[in-house]
Amino acid sequence: MESGVAGSLPSWNPGATRQAIENFIARVTSPDSTEYVPEPERIAVFDNDGTLWSEQPAYFQLLFAMDRIRAMAPDHPEWQNQQPFQAVLEGDLEAVIASGEAGLIELVMTTHAGMTTTEFEDIVAGWLVTARHPQLNRPYTDLVYQPMLELLEYLRANGFKTFIVSGGGIEFMRPWVEEVYGIPPEQVIGSSIKVAFEIRDGEPVLIRLPEIDFIDDKEGKPVGIHKFIGRRPIAAFGNSDGDLQMLQWTAGAPGASLIVLVHHTDAEREWAYDRNSHIGQLDSALVEAGEKNWVVVDMMRDWDTIYPAPVQ
Amino acid sequence: MESGVAGSLPSWNPGATRQAIENFIARVTSPDSTEYVPEPERIAVFDNDGTLWSEQPAYFQLLFAMDRIRAMAPDHPEWQNQQPFQAVLEGDLEAVIASGEAGLIELVMTTHAGMTTTEFEDIVAGWLVTARHPQLNRPYTDLVYQPMLELLEYLRANGFKTFIVSGGGIEFMRPWVEEVYGIPPEQVIGSSIKVAFEIRDGEPVLIRLPEIDFIDDKEGKPVGIHKFIGRRPIAAFGNSDGDLQMLQWTAGAPGASLIVLVHHTDAEREWAYDRNSHIGQLDSALVEAGEKNWVVVDMMRDWDTIYPAPVQ
Repeated sequence: MESGVAGSLPSWNPGATRQAIENFIARVTSPDSTEYVPEPERIAVFDNDGTLWSEQPAYFQLLFAMDRIRAMAPDHPEWQNQQPFQAVLEGDLEAVIASGEAGLIELVMTTHAGMTTTEFEDIVAGWLVTARHPQLNRPYTDLVYQPMLELLEYLRANGFKTFIVSGGGIEFMRPWVEEVYGIPPEQVIGSSIKVAFEIRDGEPVLIRLPEIDFIDDKEGKPVGIHKFIGRRPIAAFGNSDGDLQMLQWTAGAPGASLIVLVHHTDAEREWAYDRNSHIGQLDSALVEAGEKNWVVVDMMRDWDTIYPAPVQ
Repeated sequence: MESGVAGSLPSWNPGATRQAIENFIARVTSPDSTEYVPEPERIAVFDNDGTLWSEQPAYFQLLFAMDRIRAMAPDHPEWQNQQPFQAVLEGDLEAVIASGEAGLIELVMTTHAGMTTTEFEDIVAGWLVTARHPQLNRPYTDLVYQPMLELLEYLRANGFKTFIVSGGGIEFMRPWVEEVYGIPPEQVIGSSIKVAFEIRDGEPVLIRLPEIDFIDDKEGKPVGIHKFIGRRPIAAFGNSDGDLQMLQWTAGAPGASLIVLVHHTDAEREWAYDRNSHIGQLDSALVEAGEKNWVVVDMMRDWDTIYPAPVQ
């Protein structure tokens, strides 16, 4: 299709997937197209874990929380015999995950609340500098998908505003996504805990409270999109059943829409998982993608490269 | 001050107020200034009621709710003898306001909940076309301040991203602020009720629920700024004590900041009110502005024009 489309997707192998994305961009950006969308309405939403960066062997935010527990442990001798802390200190990831939602929430509240918002930002930023993925031994922010970085750029070059809509913590993402993805903090939607405004020693601060404010997952994703953006996206990218409602909401918009699922099929270069995975389970969304002709990225087939080359 | 500052403020009379604004812009945008702020960090936040448009004789959203009650009344004969509905139907604004927070919340929930988000947008947009201000007999969206429209443009021309941070309803503002203020829906923060995602007849919808989600007023304003923007503003504009914490939060940022209070001093061209007003009370924020040398706009002295000229 001849068009004024800007940019390219060099890490996407030629084929139906890349073609579907390129065709959609041409259809909504060509001024004489019947499906033309004015620039302010070109909203694209991306899940983060498993869509923009990896999520195995566990969500990276959980690995962060576990590292924080280890760092805080000297002040908490009682954690040696108290779950889920004991499992963390013994490095038993399976037992940590087996502690279930209640255990994970306890780990998050212990490590993510009780400080000012600025202090938490510094903790996250500091962790990212030194932490390494347990299997790949690279900084977590290196484990972003090169084809998706190109796609973000490509969409923005064609007048799209790109947003993250993640079940992960909004303040866990904001300190690094601008540099890594080119997405500013005001275009990040995620799960959150409450904060309270206080004047401390004459200075205004926001204190992070151990209380859930919003869970940006499943039905929460369209709710979060409505709350933060107030406009219906025309393109949505996810990889798991937690993204299904966001994909449905985007697909239901009047006019053209692009709905994409990233399917983790590459056990050699990344991981292969879908229906039976505890992390990033992909089952009903894959069924619906088949019924509705959504675009399914086969990571092994469609991506020439997975991660950006390490900086030498 | 020589600088590359773009744009101008023709409806602002020459004097200390305009000069303070222009000086600030020059200081944070001149690349060789010690107070230079990179473009992505140039965040400016504006209260809406009383700062960007008028708020007398009552918040325009309350006048909207009262019009909605009148439109819905034929289906609710019981409202004839039930407060606060009776006061609305009798056109007794004083009695409506005297019904207090509980009465006002009941009016809002009755008129703002129970429909899809799209239906509510259409109701607001339709109302704005036909409704007229009871005293000035103009469309409400004409009653925006010409000098503030210029200021919004001026800030954006100098690389600022402009946000609304209002105690008013976020979904009451979003249908019209892009056209009127040039502020897209994703840069609007306000009070909200909860919404729920549902599939109805195979179509995804968001249903507005009669339950408060977030009150974006007083301590809620810095909380809302943190939640939606995730970055500390460097310029903040308000007009009442409900804006005080937003102004404090902005003033407390490291580096230069511009803090502006609009003081309603012009009984002839608009309204004059401050300490003793039930709407837009301005008392402690005015005291703090004096102590901290914030910029106070004297509407009568500083503004050459109040409203844009009516479209002929």
